[in-house]
Amino acid sequence: MVLTYIYIVAITAEGMSGALAAGRRNMDMFGVGLIAFVTALGGGTVRDMLLGHYPVSWTQHPAYIYLTISAGLCTMLVARYMRHLYKIFLVLDAMGLIAFTVIGCNVALELKYSTPVVIMAGMITGIFGGILRDILCQRVPVVLRHELYASVSMLVAMLYLLLIELGVDADITMLAAFGFGLALRLAAIRWSWSLPVFSYSPGRWE
Amino acid sequence: MVLTYIYIVAITAEGMSGALAAGRRNMDMFGVGLIAFVTALGGGTVRDMLLGHYPVSWTQHPAYIYLTISAGLCTMLVARYMRHLYKIFLVLDAMGLIAFTVIGCNVALELKYSTPVVIMAGMITGIFGGILRDILCQRVPVVLRHELYASVSMLVAMLYLLLIELGVDADITMLAAFGFGLALRLAAIRWSWSLPVFSYSPGRWE
Amino acid sequence: MVLTYIYIVAITAEGMSGALAAGRRNMDMFGVGLIAFVTALGGGTVRDMLLGHYPVSWTQHPAYIYLTISAGLCTMLVARYMRHLYKIFLVLDAMGLIAFTVIGCNVALELKYSTPVVIMAGMITGIFGGILRDILCQRVPVVLRHELYASVSMLVAMLYLLLIELGVDADITMLAAFGFGLALRLAAIRWSWSLPVFSYSPGRWE
Repeated sequence: MVLTYIYIVAITAEGMSGALAAGRRNMDMFGVGLIAFVTALGGGTVRDMLLGHYPVSWTQHPAYIYLTISAGLCTMLVARYMRHLYKIFLVLDAMGLIAFTVIGCNVALELKYSTPVVIMAGMITGIFGGILRDILCQRVPVVLRHELYASVSMLVAMLYLLLIELGVDADITMLAAFGFGLALRLAAIRWSWSLPVFSYSPGRWE
Repeated sequence: MVLTYIYIVAITAEGMSGALAAGRRNMDMFGVGLIAFVTALGGGTVRDMLLGHYPVSWTQHPAYIYLTISAGLCTMLVARYMRHLYKIFLVLDAMGLIAFTVIGCNVALELKYSTPVVIMAGMITGIFGGILRDILCQRVPVVLRHELYASVSMLVAMLYLLLIELGVDADITMLAAFGFGLALRLAAIRWSWSLPVFSYSPGRWE
Repeated sequence: MVLTYIYIVAITAEGMSGALAAGRRNMDMFGVGLIAFVTALGGGTVRDMLLGHYPVSWTQHPAYIYLTISAGLCTMLVARYMRHLYKIFLVLDAMGLIAFTVIGCNVALELKYSTPVVIMAGMITGIFGGILRDILCQRVPVVLRHELYASVSMLVAMLYLLLIELGVDADITMLAAFGFGLALRLAAIRWSWSLPVFSYSPGRWE
């Protein structure tokens, strides 16, 4: 299925983004591999643990373990050239976000969770890998601060569920989710669309 | 049941505290909503995942998802006025701590865990939302450093189990837990009661 | 069984290392106890939650809760003398790493997970307590940056599985795992062996 191919490209791209974050903290090879693994597969892991969906997906697909760790280690070699590829990378990352979201929704749908939980499951799959990466690398999660990212995941999840609910053909639903999500995410990057920011300076109490 | 009403007030207050912490890190609306959600419902989620108590509570109560996220977003609007309300807020937060603790104990009791695990379950429900909030907002967990907070949760859990063990009436047990917990927490704030602090400066090794 | 004794010594040593990290952040007694607990038992907890291995181990052994928290609190009293003991401490920590790894592998083997997942389970048990300690104490996980540590866990897990696969006697397998692991870890400390570090300074994008 096409979704699987996109997923494989996506976890590779996410693994690479994890490796770069690890490199900013001067981690060793092992740390690079671990952060790559967590960034790529952590979102799905958190989703599975939250929903009680055992066995956790990657434990049944050892190939994903090897792939994400290898992607991280290879990134150590090619990092210097990556700035030339960053537009491609942003597209792959956006496709990954959408693929993760759709897959997360599917898992929760199969387990018969209610609609808001299905949307949360899609979003958690989409964004939690990046959040875990940022926690391990000591920075405030970037997905909660910059251009539309988590919101793209939420809107894709909503659109996906709506089309399923309306009985739209599965292929068209998938195309619509990817078309809409990619357009929104790339537009957000291009024109720096972002949500209102909340800045709060505590006074005496917090 | 009264405990449910207190719980609803409590998750609202915790959601607001999460939003303020997110605001200190200049997060966007989405980040504010997520941190509010995690602060309010994260403690119960960690407890459920630790105890194998599936489905995780909030997945069965979508209203709690909407409530905590809304509480976070509304906080963006009213933050400037909140310093005038902070005494009320501290009372609500203390009631939340106690309600979370009692609910956490009840979940572990139903699952027939042993007494020390029941106490841990109460404490985890009480304090882990705040710990996750602080991890996501990049600060050392405040509940592990300031006036008595986690200790209040522990003592409330112990008192609650003792009264149950003694066969005391359920309403009186609840009243005693809230009376004792509130008095202790508010006294700790008023007179800055705190536990001994351990300050360690590493030498050659850590 | 000897492994159990080593395990008990190991969680004590890990609890002490957690307490020292908490002391560097000026946490109160409660924080010291919690960080000690999480450092000692967090790796096994994460493993159990990932593998769906319920009930989580420590919930069935309240003695481990008391032991690790006590170890943390005692550390507050003896911290000033610990620098004189640090060589012993490093040996205990290395033995803990190996014991955790072997135990983690055993749990995953019992649950019939595939070989790469068994190795991951051993490593997660070995290193995640320290990673959680460092997240709670706001530092970049030390196990991902310094001398061979996580790699020792991985190699021990591989050796252990290989010897089991070859049908080697259980006692000899255990001896080999400890002998090899201790030698490697102590040599790594003695001669500062470490993996290549990946240092990446982001340009325009990250």
